[in-house]
Amino acid sequence: MAASIQTDFGERVRKLRTDAGRSQEEFAAQANIDRSTYGKLERGLINASLLTMARVAVALDISLAELLDGLQLDADEVRSLPRSATGPKRLSR
Amino acid sequence: MAASIQTDFGERVRKLRTDAGRSQEEFAAQANIDRSTYGKLERGLINASLLTMARVAVALDISLAELLDGLQLDADEVRSLPRSATGPKRLSR
Repeated sequence: MAASIQTDFGERVRKLRTDAGRSQEEFAAQANIDRSTYGKLERGLINASLLTMARVAVALDISLAELLDGLQLDADEVRSLPRSATGPKRLSR
Repeated sequence: MAASIQTDFGERVRKLRTDAGRSQEEFAAQANIDRSTYGKLERGLINASLLTMARVAVALDISLAELLDGLQLDADEVRSLPRSATGPKRLSR
């Protein structure tokens, strides 16, 4: 199961993109992220990296802190993640 | 060469950890991050993932937005990163 923070991050990115009135396809191209990968990111299926977040933030013309603004962490869930979960980009489901 | 955002992020994490008066070893163990990996993160050698950031934020008892607060993005640098740079956790140097 994907960690809820991945889902929350994906929803946050989707909201920022749609609020800016941009399509997934256009946005992924501008951010220089593979279209399929970007779709998975919005669906919470990818454990996005700092550099991917930086691409998204630059394409939205906002800071990294603003990109992650309002995201809540479930401390118990985060502590219980298997260590391997932080390695691969995608969690096993 | 590592992207400057990785270096900046590592320095930010190191500052937050040392301000909290904690050793690398103790902190990595509490965050449940491999000690060697954590050392590389502080040195900017790792393209940290969202879940790794979540572990660090929970161990510091702060939000993700606070963890990334103040980090500046160099838009030209981010746009010029090769697409492959966002895949692996570590950039080629």
